[in-house]
Amino acid sequence: MALTGRPDEERCVVNDVTGMWTRTADSHAGVRFVDFSLRGAGQVMFQNNPVTGLLIIVAVFVGAFGEHLPQVGIGAVAGLIVGTLTAMALHVDQPSLRQGTFGFSPLLTGVAVSTFLPDKPLMWVYLVIGAAVTTVVTLALSNVLKNWGVPASTFPFVLTSWFLMLGAYHFFRLGVGSLGPPALPKAGPAGHMSLAFDPLVPSMIRGVSQVFLIGNWAAGLIILAALAISSRWAALWAAVGAVVATLIAIGFGASAPHVDLGLYGFSAVLTAIALGCTFLRPSVPVAIYALLGIVFTVFIQAALNTALAPIGIPSFTAPFVFTLWLFLLPNRDFAPTPHDKPSKVGVVSKSTDMD
Amino acid sequence: MALTGRPDEERCVVNDVTGMWTRTADSHAGVRFVDFSLRGAGQVMFQNNPVTGLLIIVAVFVGAFGEHLPQVGIGAVAGLIVGTLTAMALHVDQPSLRQGTFGFSPLLTGVAVSTFLPDKPLMWVYLVIGAAVTTVVTLALSNVLKNWGVPASTFPFVLTSWFLMLGAYHFFRLGVGSLGPPALPKAGPAGHMSLAFDPLVPSMIRGVSQVFLIGNWAAGLIILAALAISSRWAALWAAVGAVVATLIAIGFGASAPHVDLGLYGFSAVLTAIALGCTFLRPSVPVAIYALLGIVFTVFIQAALNTALAPIGIPSFTAPFVFTLWLFLLPNRDFAPTPHDKPSKVGVVSKSTDMD
Amino acid sequence: MALTGRPDEERCVVNDVTGMWTRTADSHAGVRFVDFSLRGAGQVMFQNNPVTGLLIIVAVFVGAFGEHLPQVGIGAVAGLIVGTLTAMALHVDQPSLRQGTFGFSPLLTGVAVSTFLPDKPLMWVYLVIGAAVTTVVTLALSNVLKNWGVPASTFPFVLTSWFLMLGAYHFFRLGVGSLGPPALPKAGPAGHMSLAFDPLVPSMIRGVSQVFLIGNWAAGLIILAALAISSRWAALWAAVGAVVATLIAIGFGASAPHVDLGLYGFSAVLTAIALGCTFLRPSVPVAIYALLGIVFTVFIQAALNTALAPIGIPSFTAPFVFTLWLFLLPNRDFAPTPHDKPSKVGVVSKSTDMD
Repeated sequence: MALTGRPDEERCVVNDVTGMWTRTADSHAGVRFVDFSLRGAGQVMFQNNPVTGLLIIVAVFVGAFGEHLPQVGIGAVAGLIVGTLTAMALHVDQPSLRQGTFGFSPLLTGVAVSTFLPDKPLMWVYLVIGAAVTTVVTLALSNVLKNWGVPASTFPFVLTSWFLMLGAYHFFRLGVGSLGPPALPKAGPAGHMSLAFDPLVPSMIRGVSQVFLIGNWAAGLIILAALAISSRWAALWAAVGAVVATLIAIGFGASAPHVDLGLYGFSAVLTAIALGCTFLRPSVPVAIYALLGIVFTVFIQAALNTALAPIGIPSFTAPFVFTLWLFLLPNRDFAPTPHDKPSKVGVVSKSTDMD
Repeated sequence: MALTGRPDEERCVVNDVTGMWTRTADSHAGVRFVDFSLRGAGQVMFQNNPVTGLLIIVAVFVGAFGEHLPQVGIGAVAGLIVGTLTAMALHVDQPSLRQGTFGFSPLLTGVAVSTFLPDKPLMWVYLVIGAAVTTVVTLALSNVLKNWGVPASTFPFVLTSWFLMLGAYHFFRLGVGSLGPPALPKAGPAGHMSLAFDPLVPSMIRGVSQVFLIGNWAAGLIILAALAISSRWAALWAAVGAVVATLIAIGFGASAPHVDLGLYGFSAVLTAIALGCTFLRPSVPVAIYALLGIVFTVFIQAALNTALAPIGIPSFTAPFVFTLWLFLLPNRDFAPTPHDKPSKVGVVSKSTDMD
Repeated sequence: MALTGRPDEERCVVNDVTGMWTRTADSHAGVRFVDFSLRGAGQVMFQNNPVTGLLIIVAVFVGAFGEHLPQVGIGAVAGLIVGTLTAMALHVDQPSLRQGTFGFSPLLTGVAVSTFLPDKPLMWVYLVIGAAVTTVVTLALSNVLKNWGVPASTFPFVLTSWFLMLGAYHFFRLGVGSLGPPALPKAGPAGHMSLAFDPLVPSMIRGVSQVFLIGNWAAGLIILAALAISSRWAALWAAVGAVVATLIAIGFGASAPHVDLGLYGFSAVLTAIALGCTFLRPSVPVAIYALLGIVFTVFIQAALNTALAPIGIPSFTAPFVFTLWLFLLPNRDFAPTPHDKPSKVGVVSKSTDMD
């Protein structure tokens, strides 16, 4: 996500069926724009692959129609296009643009605004301005973080959408839709969830789809397939993330309806793909480290559910982003012979290279 | 604001009537201290100009008497003097001191403490300590931010004053005065505001005065005049900021009493001057970018109104500072021939040069 | 705290009775691990001294039994061991490890989890994972902060433990124990405290013990003795911090039960040792600066009590850490002849040297 010149493509991206498409995109401006945008959609799950991106957009539409909120699919595409056009207007460098670096966060902003706020013309104005600003914030955070070699990832979406959701409480012509209501946190009784295959497995698959704020197992399966097309390792780690997160959440007694909707899974799925096979060189120690990261993502998820309750906004993918930063910043060397490669070789991608 | 060696003085500061004054200040220590302090007052609005600073202090007193809170004028001057003296005691570099870099945030801390907390001797102790710490925080944040070439601006005031306001809830001998009360956010019905010249224009002018936490149109007019003396462009952009912010707030249905008091205007006014003609080289693309910044400042204003409601403190100028950082950090090149000047030429001032 | 190659050892650490112990630790792996761990305990109070660390652990057990929470002593030791082992597993550099750099924050995480959450097996799972992650966070924050030459200090403990405490509200099998309840802040009537020797002095000494979340004067006295063994200056500044903070809190009318428990003292004690004789070169100007820092720590303590009330978590040592950062970042030169040593000589330790 948000990376140029990713040296892990050989490793993490097993299957590239897009050679001819890439050549076409090179010669037609229109096709090129579609290519940027589809790769942007794929980058939500760290995949620089237009087919993956296309399937992800299909999954969002499936989920949107499943929840009788067709505007969410349109919101995703609108965010993706506005964000990518804003990046072009701001003269970002071509390599970053071609990898979809500027598409994924605005796409998610579009999903968030159209999911939570009532569908009216003013909401679309808010969404378009929000998607454009998400690109500005992507450039801002990438500049801040490049010093430490960690990616901004989806935080531009999280930050911008937090402002937009909080703002809706004071913009009475927008309305707050399905946000909130704000409430003081309160510890409840332990949730109860059957540990049978059904409903446990659908919950886990919904965890995958909740990356796009959708609790729909069909959408979750399409996203897993989209990942597998680009990288079988990414699909495998996504599954590991969903399974481990769900079991940890149940083990600690998290609210059963939340677990069932997949709300403890989505950030952990992203942590799993990011730490397991995207930003660190896969190995047994890295797998253990990634598992610790997955578990702590679930803890941060519960923590943010508490912390954000009084102001009535969702955590979005912040639990993933915070874990990603905390686990990449130590910049550890997990290679078996650390004395040969003295520093930092464990981190695959150290620069977002956006200037 | 908080900048040394500003290369934009020729451009943004049209009218300098202060040549003789500057020569006098060079030779008398007492006059020099007054000069530092007045420039500090001017820097609240980014103007390194003692006449502008003097008029701004007059405006604060006009507003203070208009609200029957004369202590606010004294608080402003006390903050300005304490902050400037603290900077001298900490041996800051002379060029920064001479530009008023260490005056504007403590001045605003003085205004905040004397506006919100009850007027008693202990409040003045709190104000003096707060103003001294504001200078320490100015040095701290300038050191942090110089890596990225963005100014600390008024954030030292915001951060210190947030601590002071929050602390007042637990310092029962101080009392919380007009703060709060803390409450969970709640979406209300759309506000109604007549779009007639009166009351719309006075609201917009009050937006200018609210930079100093004052809702007074006479003070707003004096501040606009103070700006025009130093830079007609700054005065123009201040007006653009106030007009656009008020219209956006009304368009999205913000609370009518808040709009009327100018509470959606003040941060947008600062964003307008900062992005429109202070930190970026004026051009048509920059003007469009500044307008996007003004609109997003209004969104952040609404967002912070929500986020800070449960802890009962005002946003101060945080919406402006957050927008400033997010819009300067991308470090975009808005010049017409970007390939000639390969990077970062769009940002005028890159270093606060405080060590 | 968290410093390698501390050049202040001659100055701040007067009394080293540990020569023979150090030689033994050099030759036996088991003794070495105990040595690392004890130094880790000592580093909570900035002392790289195993005897100080041992006495601090004794103090924690005395306080734990005094409050009928023996699990807190075990929690402290468990956190210390898990955190140190995690650092070894992550191949941190030997010099940092030997100075106890990776022990103090996990020790405090162990204290926090076992103090606030109910004693059941799942709590211990939470504690162990939390202590391991605290070491990851220590590495992460040290990497971020090394750019500015300020230490992460106890913030890895604060951040990780905030997540763990907030998470407990949604992990119903853990339970929230003595946390919260979350409430909106409310200004109350001024507290009343007698200014007699008793109860004032015991309150001040409890302030020292509250560094470990314990309100027990016997534990406080043992900690002061542990400090004096390592550095009489550190013990003196700890006492100054406790006295000044208590008087300031009473002067501003803070809640009498809070003052009595030492809750306004512990962060100020840490600020006093850190600014007074650890990170800045002692002198009269530095003493004045440290006093300003102590007073502002009390203000931030009151502020965080307000800000964290709606989400029902304690401030831990955040008031100290925030003050430390704000007062070290200006990087001022307090030496009497600043023109001889042109920059930054006032800051003793500029690098945590963890990579």
